Amino acid sequence: MMELIKYPPKNEWNSLLQRPTVQRDVLENKVRAILNDVKQKGDAAVKNYTQLFDNISLNEIAVSIKEAQVAMDITGDLKRAIDTAAANIRTFHKDQLPKVEYVETMPGIECRRKPVAIEKVGLYIPGGTAPLFSSLLMLGIPARLAGCKEIIICTPADKNGNIHPAILYAAAITGINKIYKVGGAQAIASMAYGTETIPQVYKIFGPGNQYVTAAKQLIQQEGIAIDMPAGPSELCVLADDTANATFIAADLLSQAEHGPDSQVLFITTDETLAGNVIKQLNDQLSKLARKEIALAALQNSKIILVQNIDGGIDLVNEYAPEHLIINCREEDRMAELVINAGSVFIGSYSPESAGDYASGTNHVLPTNGSAKAFSGVSVDSFIKKISFQKISAAGLKNIANTIIVMAEAEGLDAHANAIKIRSNN
Amino acid sequence: MMELIKYPPKNEWNSLLQRPTVQRDVLENKVRAILNDVKQKGDAAVKNYTQLFDNISLNEIAVSIKEAQVAMDITGDLKRAIDTAAANIRTFHKDQLPKVEYVETMPGIECRRKPVAIEKVGLYIPGGTAPLFSSLLMLGIPARLAGCKEIIICTPADKNGNIHPAILYAAAITGINKIYKVGGAQAIASMAYGTETIPQVYKIFGPGNQYVTAAKQLIQQEGIAIDMPAGPSELCVLADDTANATFIAADLLSQAEHGPDSQVLFITTDETLAGNVIKQLNDQLSKLARKEIALAALQNSKIILVQNIDGGIDLVNEYAPEHLIINCREEDRMAELVINAGSVFIGSYSPESAGDYASGTNHVLPTNGSAKAFSGVSVDSFIKKISFQKISAAGLKNIANTIIVMAEAEGLDAHANAIKIRSNN
Repeated sequence: MMELIKYPPKNEWNSLLQRPTVQRDVLENKVRAILNDVKQKGDAAVKNYTQLFDNISLNEIAVSIKEAQVAMDITGDLKRAIDTAAANIRTFHKDQLPKVEYVETMPGIECRRKPVAIEKVGLYIPGGTAPLFSSLLMLGIPARLAGCKEIIICTPADKNGNIHPAILYAAAITGINKIYKVGGAQAIASMAYGTETIPQVYKIFGPGNQYVTAAKQLIQQEGIAIDMPAGPSELCVLADDTANATFIAADLLSQAEHGPDSQVLFITTDETLAGNVIKQLNDQLSKLARKEIALAALQNSKIILVQNIDGGIDLVNEYAPEHLIINCREEDRMAELVINAGSVFIGSYSPESAGDYASGTNHVLPTNGSAKAFSGVSVDSFIKKISFQKISAAGLKNIANTIIVMAEAEGLDAHANAIKIRSNN
Repeated sequence: MMELIKYPPKNEWNSLLQRPTVQRDVLENKVRAILNDVKQKGDAAVKNYTQLFDNISLNEIAVSIKEAQVAMDITGDLKRAIDTAAANIRTFHKDQLPKVEYVETMPGIECRRKPVAIEKVGLYIPGGTAPLFSSLLMLGIPARLAGCKEIIICTPADKNGNIHPAILYAAAITGINKIYKVGGAQAIASMAYGTETIPQVYKIFGPGNQYVTAAKQLIQQEGIAIDMPAGPSELCVLADDTANATFIAADLLSQAEHGPDSQVLFITTDETLAGNVIKQLNDQLSKLARKEIALAALQNSKIILVQNIDGGIDLVNEYAPEHLIINCREEDRMAELVINAGSVFIGSYSPESAGDYASGTNHVLPTNGSAKAFSGVSVDSFIKKISFQKISAAGLKNIANTIIVMAEAEGLDAHANAIKIRSNN
């Protein structure tokens, strides 16, 4: 069960909040070999690895139109749920597309910055036993809103070579019809380099296992963009004596069931609450299908007692959790003090599950402390901004001397000459 | 001199536009050793490497208040030029800070996304013979506008252990007073891990040589953010028969003088113009201080003749240049067709030099084709956006069933339980 740490002094915070480090070298060499093989041999390599790792003999890599129609097989309940979630995600993301900014910095110097969709993007959607159609919505909807021209999906098929109908349905309502039955590092390689069947893209998104993560890191070094660095999922709960122990235990377990390496942190001012949460964890745990996984995650997790709630929020900011739940008297004031977190859930009726599926916010979020510098996925993630300037002959005169003096001070006289030559004309 | 390629067919574009690939392995091992050493030994390692590589014996790593006052020594002309450039950069960047977005996705489900400055950022400024005070303005001004709490600079000292007064002056007017006399990979390591003197930061910005670039790539793998992947600087000029050969040659040379590995590409519909530009290049080259460097860069560079200007812009988008100059009859229509570029200069009086120093747009831009997925530096680069949600008990009822159905379909019953347990309360 979770370890209880009482009132740690500030100089111990850093080591206390340390995430487990991942050993990458061996994995990287394996993944590098897969990347190179797909780069060289294209579809043939993709089929080989799919046979080797997933034990599936693929005739066609692409999902056919006929297969895509299986999407219509999902039951009414699931269909309605996906529709509602998709509508909320669309509502939250639809106004994120920025406008062009125009600035005349000096007379005759017109500058602007224009958002332009990344032309070609690839979404990796884990499949198998847990088909993450929710992640498809979280990636596909902002990609579509941004205006990306080519959006493709790679997702592994099941043992019979089929894609889960809920994934096909989520793709259909997102307007994505290029779906490829490839998983693992070979999927990332296919999207990074292109194969005969799978088009090359400029940015790759999506969660995945350690092979997928390692492949994304390696192709990032080759200049292909990725959404963000990935690590195990995390939840931090900050609570005082007004919080509900039953709800908190349920939230901690909803995170813990993701995997044995999931990170859970419970920070509280109230020792009685801590005790009640532990009791509730034991009670609720026994009824879960994935109880072994959840227990393993909890055993690596900590409850930290703090003197006061402001000290608690300082600890939160030092940890920079992917998800943060705030259940305390001054929940709004605490929320305003958050500097480092991916997504924040305020109050007793804002469980992480809501944001994972249906409230509308994005669930692809920075883990492993990277919330200190990274944002979650949004429409921003699917665009870049290009700057433009149009300077008149008179406008250039206004800054000619400035440029010449600076260029010469930096020892770059051809830069100065590009201005001087125009002044003489 | 530049190679002339006439009307290449589309299936040759890809190989034609290939950038030279960099061999990284040996360099990476050297740099990794430096990173580890600084991580272990802190200031002592920083001083050792500064002695070893720069032949400077540092007593103090930090620039003292007394030293910073040397900033006042720069001449009136240079001071005025820096002031004008800084004012324009501030004008262009000042409205880039986004507002908080509020969305009620369903009744009782309040969501928002809030921009928050990255708390601690580090700026690397190359020094030595060409002190890049212009890059300090391009990084320091948006960092300040974003509201970063701690902004530090690492920049190598000269042989006497001094920092160029123009760098000190640019830092002073940007409001940055933590300046450290460290260059190379050891500077990146210091900012990534922190030393006794140099504070650890969450994101590292700035141009640099191959050691700096390799160090940034390696620390990025450890989850520390960097501004963007870096490569040699590039310029592409797109022109028709209305363009001025003298101006174009001057612009190409202003790019070529950066380094022998600089990339220059000239795309035109007009063979006569191509010939005149080559003549002008020869004339202007002979007068440049850095003519050997510029000539080496031109020898690796290409002039491409295209049938029509629309074909030219397609080629531009395939190349995705860092800088693009458009000099043609339909300059505005062409500018609207740009999909992949870092910064675009429209018309005969918009030389790249203007954007490098003083028009106000940022000059830290994506190279090596990464403009397909990356933007240049802006205020955006110094913030992240955190999502918040506050759901009422009634609001949660509105999406309870959606969440439960989706969680169960994904096989995550603790996620469903976090909702069910609240429905019973």
